Amino acid sequence: MEKQVTRREMIRWAGMGAAGLAFSRGLSAAKLFGADRSARMPNFVIIFCDDMGYGDLGCYGHPTIRTPNLDRMAAEGQRWTDFYVGASVCTPSRAALLTGRLPIRSGMCSDTRRVLFPDSARGLPQSEITISEALKPQGYASACVGKWHLGHLPQFLPTNNGFDYYFGLPYSNDMDRVGGQGRQAFLDPKVEYWNVPLMRNGQIVERPADQNTLTKRYTEEAIRFIERSRNRPFFLYLAHTMVHVPLFVSDEFRGRSLRGLYGDAVEEIDWSVGRVLETLRRERLAENTLVVFTSDNGPWLTFDQHGGSAGLLREGKGCTFEGGMREPCILWWPGTIKPAVIHDLGATMDLYTTILRLAGTEPPTDRVVDGLDLRPVLFGRGPSPRDTMFYYRGARLYAVRKGPYKAHFITQSAYGGDKPVEHDPPLLYHLGHDPSEKYDIAKDHPEMIEAIRKEVERHRSDLVPGEDQLATRIEKDP
Amino acid sequence: MEKQVTRREMIRWAGMGAAGLAFSRGLSAAKLFGADRSARMPNFVIIFCDDMGYGDLGCYGHPTIRTPNLDRMAAEGQRWTDFYVGASVCTPSRAALLTGRLPIRSGMCSDTRRVLFPDSARGLPQSEITISEALKPQGYASACVGKWHLGHLPQFLPTNNGFDYYFGLPYSNDMDRVGGQGRQAFLDPKVEYWNVPLMRNGQIVERPADQNTLTKRYTEEAIRFIERSRNRPFFLYLAHTMVHVPLFVSDEFRGRSLRGLYGDAVEEIDWSVGRVLETLRRERLAENTLVVFTSDNGPWLTFDQHGGSAGLLREGKGCTFEGGMREPCILWWPGTIKPAVIHDLGATMDLYTTILRLAGTEPPTDRVVDGLDLRPVLFGRGPSPRDTMFYYRGARLYAVRKGPYKAHFITQSAYGGDKPVEHDPPLLYHLGHDPSEKYDIAKDHPEMIEAIRKEVERHRSDLVPGEDQLATRIEKDP
Repeated sequence: MEKQVTRREMIRWAGMGAAGLAFSRGLSAAKLFGADRSARMPNFVIIFCDDMGYGDLGCYGHPTIRTPNLDRMAAEGQRWTDFYVGASVCTPSRAALLTGRLPIRSGMCSDTRRVLFPDSARGLPQSEITISEALKPQGYASACVGKWHLGHLPQFLPTNNGFDYYFGLPYSNDMDRVGGQGRQAFLDPKVEYWNVPLMRNGQIVERPADQNTLTKRYTEEAIRFIERSRNRPFFLYLAHTMVHVPLFVSDEFRGRSLRGLYGDAVEEIDWSVGRVLETLRRERLAENTLVVFTSDNGPWLTFDQHGGSAGLLREGKGCTFEGGMREPCILWWPGTIKPAVIHDLGATMDLYTTILRLAGTEPPTDRVVDGLDLRPVLFGRGPSPRDTMFYYRGARLYAVRKGPYKAHFITQSAYGGDKPVEHDPPLLYHLGHDPSEKYDIAKDHPEMIEAIRKEVERHRSDLVPGEDQLATRIEKDP
Repeated sequence: MEKQVTRREMIRWAGMGAAGLAFSRGLSAAKLFGADRSARMPNFVIIFCDDMGYGDLGCYGHPTIRTPNLDRMAAEGQRWTDFYVGASVCTPSRAALLTGRLPIRSGMCSDTRRVLFPDSARGLPQSEITISEALKPQGYASACVGKWHLGHLPQFLPTNNGFDYYFGLPYSNDMDRVGGQGRQAFLDPKVEYWNVPLMRNGQIVERPADQNTLTKRYTEEAIRFIERSRNRPFFLYLAHTMVHVPLFVSDEFRGRSLRGLYGDAVEEIDWSVGRVLETLRRERLAENTLVVFTSDNGPWLTFDQHGGSAGLLREGKGCTFEGGMREPCILWWPGTIKPAVIHDLGATMDLYTTILRLAGTEPPTDRVVDGLDLRPVLFGRGPSPRDTMFYYRGARLYAVRKGPYKAHFITQSAYGGDKPVEHDPPLLYHLGHDPSEKYDIAKDHPEMIEAIRKEVERHRSDLVPGEDQLATRIEKDP
């Protein structure tokens, strides 16, 4: 017991950074991070869903989707109500999570193509430092299990971005379409309609991937990785292909949910989360592992009942209203994180900075990192340092949140053919009083608009947009 | 400990009705319900809010309203996802709860006036048997604390409807308007704008009622009633005036919520719930008391940020879409009800039948009672007997739910001036797959429409509409 407490204390000191308590007490770095490093560093598991809506879990109020494992995880940990992703579509959102930077900085967003496609020539630039790359010098084992979508050519794959191991799809499961009729293909999906590859490390091991068993196989891979990493610190990035259309589930979950196929797919992910947490408990790793559950962007509403629900939030995937970029987020770390509902602001980019600091290292200082350190909230010691959120669509800044106020300088429907509409003054919503963004209060609060404009100026003052990585296509042989 | 178990068993036997286990074992009724009756009968507390939306509690997914006491109550008890009220406005909904009957049977609904007003001549007919009247022969003490709205003339008041004690407003807090300018009066409410009376038993004790302190005073009255009833079985009907506009809160709660004034009012009710449960625990009554928390109808959306939210449900107060008639509902009874999320159908009318049976008595047999017995669900022994739900607006049947399917024969906006629109075939929604009532599937499921039409026939076969009690006004002196 005493040893456990000591271990947890060690983690906390490490978590406080280089100037922390340990050093101030004269302990050498070698003693703290030396021979026993592997026993003291916390493990990290990020479970990242695809296109899951803010309102799609039981603990976020869905009436017919049953998620007992996630509800329990939330009851034992922190359930965040105001947690954001870096973009409202897959590729830029994933880039933000893994680099801690707004996609505009890495060039992983574009006004020409919203995400990477099978004919895309590029991917995450080598100059970007992913979480897995940053954790490597700290002795971490790492695996990416699931959807990647940050470049499918060899040099962009997870194993060339700091991950020791990769098993999954290199891009979205609705790409490489080869069969089915129009929209009907999505509403009554068959595996053979999509010729997507399933990869292990750099090799294609199955094509088309049998999407029915993906959630199950990802889970098995995740569990095997945890088991074989039990004696060293590890980082597991479990990025589910579900619940992105076309929806697939294994036989045990088909027809089981009250919510239809979409609910079946969410409930299989809930099962998967239960298996992962159970593995951590069984391996006695739970008290030394931070587990995060969230998703890449809001629900794909254009697919009707095959898309999820953002609950009371406005709109979904693809736009800069809250439904597009605010996500369920549960943080779990028994013994360290106390049960709570957190209304502070947080973002996937903050996971980058928080995880690096917890692992005793620092984010790079040669570039702007947007991620902030959420450890005060995790440890119940103080509020989130995040006060603002920038909502980009492609390479353009559409909206900015400051405290509870959000200004929309530009609005545009998620997937319609409409053009962006500029607002001057911007639309202004109070997200605390009006989480559904219904009541424009711009004329009552010019001072907030002014304050937000100043945030935009500050933000732009050090902004160097990265070279567009999404626009370039593979040149075809003439 | 043994004594506790025995007592709980006794309650269960009583709960199984006259033909229950106790009698089958040859125990005499006198032995079971005689001298020790007060020690064995369960107590009942119904906490009934006003105009609270399906999405307004933390445990139902609201992002900025903090309800730790209700969340805990839900975690310790049953949180129902598909629980209905008998009408989408105050008066008929309250009549349904207290009589176990659809308001069309008692005449407590009308196509001329939707609720009772200060100039209404009538109220709940004396021929109706309220919960409190039905419990009286079983030796129950009873109190109505809060909003009544089933007739304000002396013969209709709670003390003439089986309640031993009454403290509260006889009707809605937005009636007797004497000040303020139009809509602005509601958005910046002052106590003096509404000349509503506060009554104790048959006497007006304050006019206008100081609405700022109503939630607090209701709570104190409720606690005092519990304390003075500790030695006999009791029924407490705590019907909050909040969160009906105009919104008022006590000083301690003003400005405290992230959701503005509406959130302040909900959070004061959450505090009140915590105080009631704490009192039951302190008095060692918790294990012998069923506590129900729900509301009379959905959020009054026309009041913008002063109205609540139905979450992902469609529309709110006043209409027959789900947002008007589906409510948060939490059942709590430590030691008897096990923690669960319940997706079965339930309705306030079922509380009538369930409570009567738990108290060892039967609903009246000389009339149709719509309430069904939810004890199988409470005790974790089986599914809800409820499979259908009838959605009336005034005296007309607008919609019917059967299993997960809901047919709208008539639709109409909640409060607009539009006329009812009839649908033939009806609109058909699958509430499991499509809880937001977005996708009409009538043409795919003629068999379900047929099955629902049969339910309507069956329903109408024994329906004798009661004489309209809401249309008649007090005759003025010439």
